[in-house]
Amino acid sequence: MGQKRILSGMRPTGKLHLGHYTGALENWVARQDELDTGGKRVFETYFLIADYHSLTTSLETADIFDCTIDMVTDWLAAGVDPEKSPIFRQSRVKQHTELFLIYAMLITASRLERNPTLKDQVRDLNMEAISYGHLGYPVLQAADILLYKGNIVPVGEDQLPHVEITREIARRFNKQYQHPELGDVFEEPEPKITKFSRLAGLDGKMKMSKSLGNTIFLSDSPEEVQKKLRKAVTDTQKIRKNDPGRPEVCTVFSYHCKFSDPQRVEQIERDCRSGALGCVDCKKLCATAISEELAPILEKRSEYVTQPDMVKEILLTGENRARMVAEETMSQVREAMNIG
Amino acid sequence: MGQKRILSGMRPTGKLHLGHYTGALENWVARQDELDTGGKRVFETYFLIADYHSLTTSLETADIFDCTIDMVTDWLAAGVDPEKSPIFRQSRVKQHTELFLIYAMLITASRLERNPTLKDQVRDLNMEAISYGHLGYPVLQAADILLYKGNIVPVGEDQLPHVEITREIARRFNKQYQHPELGDVFEEPEPKITKFSRLAGLDGKMKMSKSLGNTIFLSDSPEEVQKKLRKAVTDTQKIRKNDPGRPEVCTVFSYHCKFSDPQRVEQIERDCRSGALGCVDCKKLCATAISEELAPILEKRSEYVTQPDMVKEILLTGENRARMVAEETMSQVREAMNIG
Ligand code: SF4
Ligand code: SF4
Repeated sequence: MGQKRILSGMRPTGKLHLGHYTGALENWVARQDELDTGGKRVFETYFLIADYHSLTTSLETADIFDCTIDMVTDWLAAGVDPEKSPIFRQSRVKQHTELFLIYAMLITASRLERNPTLKDQVRDLNMEAISYGHLGYPVLQAADILLYKGNIVPVGEDQLPHVEITREIARRFNKQYQHPELGDVFEEPEPKITKFSRLAGLDGKMKMSKSLGNTIFLSDSPEEVQKKLRKAVTDTQKIRKNDPGRPEVCTVFSYHCKFSDPQRVEQIERDCRSGALGCVDCKKLCATAISEELAPILEKRSEYVTQPDMVKEILLTGENRARMVAEETMSQVREAMNIG
Repeated sequence: MGQKRILSGMRPTGKLHLGHYTGALENWVARQDELDTGGKRVFETYFLIADYHSLTTSLETADIFDCTIDMVTDWLAAGVDPEKSPIFRQSRVKQHTELFLIYAMLITASRLERNPTLKDQVRDLNMEAISYGHLGYPVLQAADILLYKGNIVPVGEDQLPHVEITREIARRFNKQYQHPELGDVFEEPEPKITKFSRLAGLDGKMKMSKSLGNTIFLSDSPEEVQKKLRKAVTDTQKIRKNDPGRPEVCTVFSYHCKFSDPQRVEQIERDCRSGALGCVDCKKLCATAISEELAPILEKRSEYVTQPDMVKEILLTGENRARMVAEETMSQVREAMNIG
């Protein structure tokens, strides 16, 4: 049995924060480095900078290059290995646009309008009218995945409808067009429900988000982390040091759960409840735990941050590798369709 | 003032009939060959084989290559000059798909849903649900035109809404993205209302159409034309040779108007009304007039039809030329957007 291939992507959002790390990047690296009992990698991993996708929600592109470099620097710092995993910008591998146009013919507009994720977005972003491209978001995503013959799609529950669209498109293509030698050009990828842990913001809001200014960046120094933690929201009913607290409503405690070791977490929970631990000390412990997690990332980051050209070089190499795979798929598509 | 550029296109429908000729091709060639008082060509003409567009209404592509060769053979036979005008397949110039995806972000889905031409098509073709790509038809058309910086768009009245969408997209792009040197990358093309004469079918139906089997092909020999004319519908009330007829309801007479010289047309009209002319003779005259029109086309056709490789070569050359222009436009787009 061959290696399974996984395509993962992120929009070029600039410097990443801890929410990106626990919500995706950590998982990406784990899969990249996962070995089977024979010491062979279980997955081939491809990492996509989804810059075309970012146009679906904002047309601003003035700082897209800088954002890309910042983000990729964080990917590399967090352990994405460009030798193992091609890293590439969607917009630099033109085959994405070619397959997008072809797939556009294989799905009805009304099917896309019924997409529940889109409906949520329209509501959340309060967008008056979504762009035609935004409506086609799942079509572009299908092209992203199938261009590399991705066969596993790690997704949160809410993303399942998108994978279903990818599967439908693969099926529809195979039904309509058969390759003279291969038969089916595409395999329907399998969704793999993955629990991505969402990190609360420093202000207690559900999510870390750059626009809310409630984040800890992967590039924050221990001093910055300490400083940010000092302002973090805790149990608002624990006012004096020795008041008993409720860890279950405390943001800082949720970080402990993620970044401190289990015994430490148990003890903090006990001492918070009893009033033995004050928030000031608890936050210091938390900042230390986070900075310990970040230390290797910070160290690795320092290698790259001084050499943006190296990051650019990594992109160019990744794009060449991606393009070769993409072009092979497109050759098959063109042969099956007699077009292109 | 520079030459104006015109992009014209047709889907790869195979052998062309007289309806294609009077409805488009004749006009294409006239514009290609139009000279100003200084003997310089007025227009730069580009001729597109819209093979991606054909996917919007049918996914069948098995014979698309043969249809392309047949159609282009007719283009050449009718006077399209590949030296003057690049002839190329949309699907072979990938920049179309790239610009399509970008433009997809610049127009709302609801704007496309309100497109009156689409509504007509949905009704006419009795399509249960149009594809996402079909909904985006005017977006792809905008990319076709603006990729070559077409600045004149010859259209029938009914196509005006599409040109308006192209203009909107050009405007939107320029407003959002400015090129560091050029400023505006795109010019809003001007529609030029053109009267395309529609030819009735041999069966008297509104339109010649291959699927109705009521056509005269550009490649029909004089014998075939004679034979087809014999079955053509005339004034159904003119039963015997010397019955007076009504030219205004007669298909054959409509062909005379198009292909016979004006004095002859006047005489036929008189003689039909008086009963001096019978339909059998009238049809013979008509067949001769049509075959005279077709004679140079048939002759030129014979050069190409024996050499399909030459046609293919013309396509490859045209595609290289088109690609160079398209790539220049896309470089400007990428520079203006900082993406791609
Ligand atoms: S002691 Fe720690 S866990 Fe308890 S409320 Fe304060 S910060 Fe939160
Ligand atoms: S004589 Fe000619 S114009 Fe008159 S009805 Fe017959 S075919 Fe038509």
